[in-house]
Amino acid sequence: MSEVVQRRVEDGVALLTLNRPDRLNAWTAEMERVYFGLLEECAQAEEVRVIVVTGAGRGFCAGADMQELQAIGDGSLEVSAEVHERRPQTFPLSIPKPIIAAINGACAGIGLVQALMCDVRFAADGAKLTTAFARRGLVAEHGISWMLPRLIGPARALDLLLSGRVVLAQEAHTLGLVNRVSAPEKLLDETLDYACELALKCSPASMARMKRQVYADLERGLDEALAEADRLMLESFTAPDFVEGVTSFLERRDPRFAALGA
Amino acid sequence: MSEVVQRRVEDGVALLTLNRPDRLNAWTAEMERVYFGLLEECAQAEEVRVIVVTGAGRGFCAGADMQELQAIGDGSLEVSAEVHERRPQTFPLSIPKPIIAAINGACAGIGLVQALMCDVRFAADGAKLTTAFARRGLVAEHGISWMLPRLIGPARALDLLLSGRVVLAQEAHTLGLVNRVSAPEKLLDETLDYACELALKCSPASMARMKRQVYADLERGLDEALAEADRLMLESFTAPDFVEGVTSFLERRDPRFAALGA
Amino acid sequence: MSEVVQRRVEDGVALLTLNRPDRLNAWTAEMERVYFGLLEECAQAEEVRVIVVTGAGRGFCAGADMQELQAIGDGSLEVSAEVHERRPQTFPLSIPKPIIAAINGACAGIGLVQALMCDVRFAADGAKLTTAFARRGLVAEHGISWMLPRLIGPARALDLLLSGRVVLAQEAHTLGLVNRVSAPEKLLDETLDYACELALKCSPASMARMKRQVYADLERGLDEALAEADRLMLESFTAPDFVEGVTSFLERRDPRFAALGA
Repeated sequence: MSEVVQRRVEDGVALLTLNRPDRLNAWTAEMERVYFGLLEECAQAEEVRVIVVTGAGRGFCAGADMQELQAIGDGSLEVSAEVHERRPQTFPLSIPKPIIAAINGACAGIGLVQALMCDVRFAADGAKLTTAFARRGLVAEHGISWMLPRLIGPARALDLLLSGRVVLAQEAHTLGLVNRVSAPEKLLDETLDYACELALKCSPASMARMKRQVYADLERGLDEALAEADRLMLESFTAPDFVEGVTSFLERRDPRFAALGA
Repeated sequence: MSEVVQRRVEDGVALLTLNRPDRLNAWTAEMERVYFGLLEECAQAEEVRVIVVTGAGRGFCAGADMQELQAIGDGSLEVSAEVHERRPQTFPLSIPKPIIAAINGACAGIGLVQALMCDVRFAADGAKLTTAFARRGLVAEHGISWMLPRLIGPARALDLLLSGRVVLAQEAHTLGLVNRVSAPEKLLDETLDYACELALKCSPASMARMKRQVYADLERGLDEALAEADRLMLESFTAPDFVEGVTSFLERRDPRFAALGA
Repeated sequence: MSEVVQRRVEDGVALLTLNRPDRLNAWTAEMERVYFGLLEECAQAEEVRVIVVTGAGRGFCAGADMQELQAIGDGSLEVSAEVHERRPQTFPLSIPKPIIAAINGACAGIGLVQALMCDVRFAADGAKLTTAFARRGLVAEHGISWMLPRLIGPARALDLLLSGRVVLAQEAHTLGLVNRVSAPEKLLDETLDYACELALKCSPASMARMKRQVYADLERGLDEALAEADRLMLESFTAPDFVEGVTSFLERRDPRFAALGA
């Protein structure tokens, strides 16, 4: 398969693979268009309950493609109009299904931004992560200066942003940047196991609401969050997933929750 | 004692014990009414400087009572009106005295929500914590989608919310969900020791203001927080606790701070 | 040198040393005026790319000078007017260059506030940190109730604020309060090495924008943060540091970024 992003669905889990392995899956406008398009398809596909993102070959995504960066630098590629036409890099946050990153290797610049736009991150032991921006004369791009301090606090965020230093997966875990570290050869299986567990045992409607609640609540006060939570709770009480959730619990069996789709 | 929540006061510390041990202290509307009522009494009682909450028997609070959940599910219990009559689950945040949770065992669903509404959490080694909601077809209830990401960041919060997986006390500590892990047989004593230290050495007026500052500051900008801090600081300079705090420090003795009450 | 704050510049790094070692560098109005003045000078000096702050002797800053506190307590020192004339304690956040704290020893009260107003913190193994305020009858002063919960979450912040307990550098690191712990005899060298790396390899313009982005983004929504990031990114694409950043990367050499000054 030669697609720039590959897609496979199994057991309710879609696996999306960034696929420019000879370039450590460096990010291009085309890759972005295809990746975001696939996310949108996954959002609408009933057979997809959870999404896993990884990279082909040795890297996850080593950042913006150097040829594109050079073309921007020498003026041969004009980006100011394009920036406003493309979807924002925060697009994955709007997908109403969990997105789990399996960071298999180098994860830099916009590659790290995209990893941070996933909901949960697993990383391979030894994988290298870096913001890189300050070492290229760039700024904290695409919302990373908003998201990173909320994930790991402003001091750890500033350490990573100001220095552009490389952190290995173990340190990234200690910092709170990734949720779990796996042996490289087990990373994908362990991530898929986690995703399958969500697909099998957790209500897609619950997960959609929770994801929206968490990101929306980062921007609003507690009273407003509480009012929305109460509204959603009352709604859930009359939905079939609640009865199935309680019944399956009492019957000690896996639940059969309804799919979520277009 | 057969009260659904027990209360005992000693050395300036009130110990509240959720007391339905045969049900792992599952939450009921009655328990909530009694617990919140006791918190309010503690707020007004001069002899109480710090509050500790724990569970009787093997659990802390295993979540909503299953019989109540089933009655909601089959429509025999109507909750939409009640939700707006009951105090919000965030009520403990408004109590102007420190509330320390001693999580002695299972802590799930609304039980976890209540643990998170305490200011500091100690847990017994081996105690199981879980959000549980997604596995019952429910949403992130009662403000947990607001509070949890502020405590441990949105990615760790989403892991716990989306998966509904059980974490043991040690992992909960690593995640930042609990402040300290104790051996089960020492948990209550160590929590009471910590609470007694606060009651003995820290100004009740200071603690009341700090608690209000921290929660209010989560919702406002730095300039506003700073203006309020300066106002409170100038106020504190003319209060007796400041003179006593400095004098007792210079005399190397424990301070005698004024009580806080109705 | 008898200055209350010493200043030395080398290799793009300014080292500021709080210098009242016989008082563990206790904070006075004079020290504050000189320290903030030096920060402002560093902001404008082209030869300064990164700032390191430490304390002379055994302590970093043991808090407000006890004589000043006593004078406030007995009414002989009037502070209400002065508070509004002095720069806010958050002044360091506005300096467009990274400020790294090297916490060499005791760091308490306003000393801890000032450490938290640095962007990154390294601490000597064994250094003692404490908020102290609650034990003196004081409140969460100068914005610490805003900053500390964002750095380490509200529960860890409340533990430290309510109890006023002393934490050693290792625990401070676990809590996320300091970024790194060094052996006492190596602390300053390791901090300066880190600062020199920033001065040598990272664009001063990038660092200035990133620091502003991170603190501003703590107070605004994601959409607004993203719009600002896109604006700054487009601006960076036409600046010399971007070309130099990409070119030096491809040529595998250290970059030569422009200085930042008045």
